[in-house]
Amino acid sequence: MKTKLIIITALLLGTMSLQAQRQMVNVPELPGYVTLKCDFHIHTVFSDGNVWPTNRVSEAWRDGLDAIAITDHIEYQPHKQYIPTDHSAAWKIASAMAADNNIILVMGTEITRGMPPGHLNALFITDPDLLATDDFMKVVEAAMAQGAFIHWNHPGWKSQQPDGIPRMYDVHREMIAKGWLHGIEYFNGGEYYPLVMDMCRENKLALIGNSDTHGVISEEYTAPRYSHRPMTLVFAKERTAESLKEALFAGRTAVWYGDNLAAFEEIALPLFRSVITAGAPYKDDGTRIWFELCNSSDIPMKLSGGPEGAPAMLTVPARSMVIVRADRKYLSQPLTYNVDNIITGSDSVLKVEISPAKK
Amino acid sequence: MKTKLIIITALLLGTMSLQAQRQMVNVPELPGYVTLKCDFHIHTVFSDGNVWPTNRVSEAWRDGLDAIAITDHIEYQPHKQYIPTDHSAAWKIASAMAADNNIILVMGTEITRGMPPGHLNALFITDPDLLATDDFMKVVEAAMAQGAFIHWNHPGWKSQQPDGIPRMYDVHREMIAKGWLHGIEYFNGGEYYPLVMDMCRENKLALIGNSDTHGVISEEYTAPRYSHRPMTLVFAKERTAESLKEALFAGRTAVWYGDNLAAFEEIALPLFRSVITAGAPYKDDGTRIWFELCNSSDIPMKLSGGPEGAPAMLTVPARSMVIVRADRKYLSQPLTYNVDNIITGSDSVLKVEISPAKK
Amino acid sequence: MKTKLIIITALLLGTMSLQAQRQMVNVPELPGYVTLKCDFHIHTVFSDGNVWPTNRVSEAWRDGLDAIAITDHIEYQPHKQYIPTDHSAAWKIASAMAADNNIILVMGTEITRGMPPGHLNALFITDPDLLATDDFMKVVEAAMAQGAFIHWNHPGWKSQQPDGIPRMYDVHREMIAKGWLHGIEYFNGGEYYPLVMDMCRENKLALIGNSDTHGVISEEYTAPRYSHRPMTLVFAKERTAESLKEALFAGRTAVWYGDNLAAFEEIALPLFRSVITAGAPYKDDGTRIWFELCNSSDIPMKLSGGPEGAPAMLTVPARSMVIVRADRKYLSQPLTYNVDNIITGSDSVLKVEISPAKK
Amino acid sequence: MKTKLIIITALLLGTMSLQAQRQMVNVPELPGYVTLKCDFHIHTVFSDGNVWPTNRVSEAWRDGLDAIAITDHIEYQPHKQYIPTDHSAAWKIASAMAADNNIILVMGTEITRGMPPGHLNALFITDPDLLATDDFMKVVEAAMAQGAFIHWNHPGWKSQQPDGIPRMYDVHREMIAKGWLHGIEYFNGGEYYPLVMDMCRENKLALIGNSDTHGVISEEYTAPRYSHRPMTLVFAKERTAESLKEALFAGRTAVWYGDNLAAFEEIALPLFRSVITAGAPYKDDGTRIWFELCNSSDIPMKLSGGPEGAPAMLTVPARSMVIVRADRKYLSQPLTYNVDNIITGSDSVLKVEISPAKK
Repeated sequence: MKTKLIIITALLLGTMSLQAQRQMVNVPELPGYVTLKCDFHIHTVFSDGNVWPTNRVSEAWRDGLDAIAITDHIEYQPHKQYIPTDHSAAWKIASAMAADNNIILVMGTEITRGMPPGHLNALFITDPDLLATDDFMKVVEAAMAQGAFIHWNHPGWKSQQPDGIPRMYDVHREMIAKGWLHGIEYFNGGEYYPLVMDMCRENKLALIGNSDTHGVISEEYTAPRYSHRPMTLVFAKERTAESLKEALFAGRTAVWYGDNLAAFEEIALPLFRSVITAGAPYKDDGTRIWFELCNSSDIPMKLSGGPEGAPAMLTVPARSMVIVRADRKYLSQPLTYNVDNIITGSDSVLKVEISPAKK
Repeated sequence: MKTKLIIITALLLGTMSLQAQRQMVNVPELPGYVTLKCDFHIHTVFSDGNVWPTNRVSEAWRDGLDAIAITDHIEYQPHKQYIPTDHSAAWKIASAMAADNNIILVMGTEITRGMPPGHLNALFITDPDLLATDDFMKVVEAAMAQGAFIHWNHPGWKSQQPDGIPRMYDVHREMIAKGWLHGIEYFNGGEYYPLVMDMCRENKLALIGNSDTHGVISEEYTAPRYSHRPMTLVFAKERTAESLKEALFAGRTAVWYGDNLAAFEEIALPLFRSVITAGAPYKDDGTRIWFELCNSSDIPMKLSGGPEGAPAMLTVPARSMVIVRADRKYLSQPLTYNVDNIITGSDSVLKVEISPAKK
Repeated sequence: MKTKLIIITALLLGTMSLQAQRQMVNVPELPGYVTLKCDFHIHTVFSDGNVWPTNRVSEAWRDGLDAIAITDHIEYQPHKQYIPTDHSAAWKIASAMAADNNIILVMGTEITRGMPPGHLNALFITDPDLLATDDFMKVVEAAMAQGAFIHWNHPGWKSQQPDGIPRMYDVHREMIAKGWLHGIEYFNGGEYYPLVMDMCRENKLALIGNSDTHGVISEEYTAPRYSHRPMTLVFAKERTAESLKEALFAGRTAVWYGDNLAAFEEIALPLFRSVITAGAPYKDDGTRIWFELCNSSDIPMKLSGGPEGAPAMLTVPARSMVIVRADRKYLSQPLTYNVDNIITGSDSVLKVEISPAKK
Repeated sequence: MKTKLIIITALLLGTMSLQAQRQMVNVPELPGYVTLKCDFHIHTVFSDGNVWPTNRVSEAWRDGLDAIAITDHIEYQPHKQYIPTDHSAAWKIASAMAADNNIILVMGTEITRGMPPGHLNALFITDPDLLATDDFMKVVEAAMAQGAFIHWNHPGWKSQQPDGIPRMYDVHREMIAKGWLHGIEYFNGGEYYPLVMDMCRENKLALIGNSDTHGVISEEYTAPRYSHRPMTLVFAKERTAESLKEALFAGRTAVWYGDNLAAFEEIALPLFRSVITAGAPYKDDGTRIWFELCNSSDIPMKLSGGPEGAPAMLTVPARSMVIVRADRKYLSQPLTYNVDNIITGSDSVLKVEISPAKK
């Protein structure tokens, strides 16, 4: 006699589908703003990517992102033999899922040219078809007419800039002069471009960092090698598309890639202060004091260049605390450190002062 | 002065692309055959899947598979608005990559009907367009004319069989009578169908287990929950498409899903013997003996029902060994166990005898 | 010619010792108090444990604990042949390290008798030698004279209570009557004792949960099986030994074991509210609303028994958020759920009301 | 009414104690021998270690080791205030457990002097008390009288050799001349000493690598940073203490530390051949061939210096395979590589030839 339990279909123990899970990412804050976690450079099967547009929303949701832009190439569809060109397809397919999942889906596209001008993303556009035209400046003009935020992608990409040194060409200067360029990728995929810090600083452009993913995010950014995809942190007044756009044009961004943050000092310093807290001395032997440094974020903080009578180097891992044992004089004067993984310029890192809390 | 190191583009430390890595999977062996690790039920964007066909080859390569079939639905293309129907597209796109990566890519398709007959995969076909016709038996006939191996998919799937009890309909009996049905999925995705063991046994059909993946394999089968995707183990004379086909028609298969193996006893017993080795007693206190059981495979072995004077239960984890302490009488008579995770019928598991090795 | 690099001693790449890391544990809060993470039942080589006392401090530091008690057995030293009995040894060895690492080291010991009375821990004692005497009530009296907090250990331990049912004996009632018993272990090692919830409730005793570790914490509580050791959460006015003691006598505790919390309802409800936040509806289709539930703690929240028109079950994993899609009527009335993993009595779990935030 | 299920003690789901698990370690083989995985330098609470001797056996068992020596310092017992000196204690405590777990427990001790002679381990001794005497050469003589295998520990340890350059002193030369020194640690804890390769080669001494653990192995060697503790691989005729000793005196050893192997070429080459297998070409486009390299061991193989028309670098990860695409001429001539992680001398690595298998 066979029991009913045996006869009917059974689920493999433990395979009952988990309710989908969205991780909370603990990133630094800029007081007065909400930090939006964003990836503005993403491809799908509608250009040279390998996944369907809805997957880009699922990935963003799981990764705890607030906003993404799918930016398939306007001029390049290697799958055209099988998938007819449709510049709005990814947007149309992904937008309902984004709405259901509270993800801000920014309409975007990648203008794809040789260098100069190279590749540029136009974000917050409303009709990508109007950008499918030969004359580059006409394309940019059409994007601007739609209110686009335009950023230059991977300016030091060796396929287009063999010496790896990003440099402004006349066309970029012309765009800047006209107010038609608003940001540059400091980080793309696996590369960073140190000089972009200076370019953005000098021209008041936003620092941008994106994955430029063509494959599967969870395969490209796998623990223990990676804890997260690269992203742009945008400090917005609210968690809305409008606020996101305002913040981008205002240049309130930072780039998080690997264990590093890139941001200008006026942003980087409050970010650091939002995540590192010094405790009060819990031991004092008359010569030295002991106190804790806590890091409440998902980004380790790597301090070096410590002063005499204090640790020369201190790494405070993510969501962890470390003990500082320092000379008693630091009860009345701050310890000074470089934060080696907070990049503030092409040749500078953030400098900070740390003092133990008062009892 | 800025150093050249700072000016040029730099790779994030540790992001230089890893040479792709194919894991070696340690599965049981049937003496005289090679074990081919196969997934015969896979979708892409060309039906209702979410990834590009080349990703299916990459996934198979990383997972250590020997053979896959991409089996997009003949009758169902929900992406048709964006991707015109092309039953051969996935094959054309994936086959060069399969050849470069030593993956046997079996041409296949899923015939997609209400129950009965339900869904069936036709493998080893040569022209899927000839299967795009209304009359079901004509479709099967066309597949048979191409030399197809045909297996019935998820026969207890509740969307088609609400009580979850797989049952043969006239059409299946007719197919079997004509020699037009060659296997049934005992496992699909996350479900197993116990009665399929009996159906296959009685009708001399091959046991099949597939992922039926629509998404991303590494997202669907993630450690620690899963160590591998479900697969059909095929015991072939050689690692070739021809040998694979011969073995399937001969029914030399087992199904590996979660921590379980399903196989008929004549196959299951040598599989067990190929991975579990008992060492010689290394301690003997006059009353009891101590010896080791080693499991050289990636599948744990879960023994229960042990005899008096021996452990009642014994789990030998994958790639591990455990110590058995048993009565001295087992120097001259075998210990008997059930292997709870080797399924040999709708209500039976493998029974084995284990003896310590002679010194 | 050999280079200097080759001649001298080299460190294995990646082995330079990491600065020790203390993880931050995100546990629920009771408004107005700090949550101290504590383990009050720990052994060392000075009774039947396997590690040196300083390791207990290192383990606590890494685990993010605030306070521990080392509680070697007064009456049982199986290593006596090699280590002479010294009831204060562990304290003397560990206390300097505790002070350096900001760990509150509570002096304690385990009074170790057959049942009744079984095993009891005396915490906050000052001289364990005075407890080394035969008459049990004299021992307790000596502990009380030192200001001890006394809790009964593992009252349903099958070695002492073969049916596994914890029950009060006269000696326990006498202790309670005299004010000499202050808490009971609801959880010990791998066991929980449901009836202890009622015993503590009826007798106004503190709920306690401890590891009772004898081995190595990181070997006993290893991911993915465990994310943390069992612990008592104590809601203290300050992070000091005095406040800890006050809170224990006041019974402001919860027990965190596996994915579960045990606490009386008046504590459990604010704990839940401190970690689960409902967002405002971000989608409203006229029939249903969509909103997020966020869990900022390291403890998953497992909701069941959801009302009509809302998910029946909802698991909000640690540090994650999930989407709730519910009938529009829940804009004006709360959703009601059981929290299956917050235990409030021997046969009850916490009941909560959840409403989406106002826009 | 309370159900019995609720009243009685319950185990936390998933905490029922796992049968202890011993991992199988896949290490290279020397044809004709069994590879014994050994750690000959281990401390316990009986000198300056932090764990009880039985833990050392448990650790070895879990780690898949075949043999260990506990080598507490003869001259140094910092716990003496609490634990009276007993040079045989660790052995007496651990030996029954070793016998039960099929671990070869070698009796040993660490002779602990300033440099010269530094620290030396005497293995296979029978009475450590006879080594507790002042005159160093008398100690060695006493060890030799017991049949000891003597190896010099961490000769470049900066506490004893501030420039980190290991060098022979007269006392070592005298020991070698008398046949009283049989091996030197090339690797200890986290350090390797390149010149030891030459010292051992020139003086026919065995290469040794040990953990020198004082703490908890699983805390010191944690994934993803480490996959295993450092160890000496000994190529013995049988898995017995006698064969182990014979092999050590014969110098048939290799050292496995991190991702590296150190061994003299006559041993290193067959080790490499025992784990790397080249497949037959599975693709040939008339210009190039494609074939697989498989690594069946737990040690990655890192090849560099590849010839023209073949990959310059090739890493074959542990238990994985990679694809080699090479010029067709390599059908008839071998590819030559350096194996960067198999060290054969103070300034040399193993050189190998690889050819695809014949069809």
